[in-house]
Amino acid sequence: MSRQQIVAGAADMIRRRGLNATSIREVAKHAGTPLGSTYHYFPGGKDQLATEAVRWASDAVSGVLTAKLRKGPVDGMKAFFTLWREVVSENDFQAGCPVLAVSVEETSGREALAAAAEAFTTWSDQLADSLRTHGVTPDRADRLAALVVTAAEGAVAMCRAQRSLQPLDDVAAELTALLASAVRT
Amino acid sequence: MSRQQIVAGAADMIRRRGLNATSIREVAKHAGTPLGSTYHYFPGGKDQLATEAVRWASDAVSGVLTAKLRKGPVDGMKAFFTLWREVVSENDFQAGCPVLAVSVEETSGREALAAAAEAFTTWSDQLADSLRTHGVTPDRADRLAALVVTAAEGAVAMCRAQRSLQPLDDVAAELTALLASAVRT
Repeated sequence: MSRQQIVAGAADMIRRRGLNATSIREVAKHAGTPLGSTYHYFPGGKDQLATEAVRWASDAVSGVLTAKLRKGPVDGMKAFFTLWREVVSENDFQAGCPVLAVSVEETSGREALAAAAEAFTTWSDQLADSLRTHGVTPDRADRLAALVVTAAEGAVAMCRAQRSLQPLDDVAAELTALLASAVRT
Repeated sequence: MSRQQIVAGAADMIRRRGLNATSIREVAKHAGTPLGSTYHYFPGGKDQLATEAVRWASDAVSGVLTAKLRKGPVDGMKAFFTLWREVVSENDFQAGCPVLAVSVEETSGREALAAAAEAFTTWSDQLADSLRTHGVTPDRADRLAALVVTAAEGAVAMCRAQRSLQPLDDVAAELTALLASAVRT
């Protein structure tokens, strides 16, 4: 079991149950790694592991955005929603976003919270850059990018509570029209 | 210390640290109530207390929406964002929405999760009803209402991570324009 797999396992646990309910012990068990080697890999303990889990998730999402935004902001936005839709539907509404999970617990470590802030900034900036490239003014591009990221994050939570994909689908439909019109004008 | 105050205290703890990190013992301590009387009030334990805390928060937000939607959907939406802005800013970015908190932890009790689903539905329906009354088609009213609720929820999380009110303000500005234009057309 590689270091990377432990990080991915931690991200999975956090996106399901939150950070407080995630322990190094359970991550090690989940990954089938002795607790000792887990501490060896992550001497900073839970905060280090959580920080790396958030960065790992951030990079994974960012990679999808980089690829899909090549076709333009509307395609990138749709891919962002498709990605979250898959996370929610493939895990029977039991998994969401580890970045959001870390953001809403006041006991999250400072480093992990900073990594969460950076993840949101990275995704928003990628969307905003693409919108600007397609003729949207800088200020509006920032606002629309924030709207896409926040609405997807909130929709994931609403889908989990309601055990329905409707919120993600409704929000994606509305944002598709909004971004298409912003790019056209 | 009344039963109601214990419920409000539980809602406050959940919106700060999440449900997993909230214990009956700490809620009782926070409320200055003996643990025994807390269990007397809530024989169903933590799930019952969490369920009532979510309903309490749901009703509080719903009351604001009822009052402010009288002036129309744009005013109601703005009030919804103002409310969350106050929660975040008055608590130094340490508090968010207890309904979202319960929605993103797979260990949340079934009843509490159902109460969270109902809260999201109630707020969305209030906004959608108002949009319909102001001439928006039923389907679009549902989509726009979902967008308002999900974006506000996601923005609260992003504001907490980034220790900035910018995401809530950016999203509110964009949604104000969108709803105003939807009502006009």
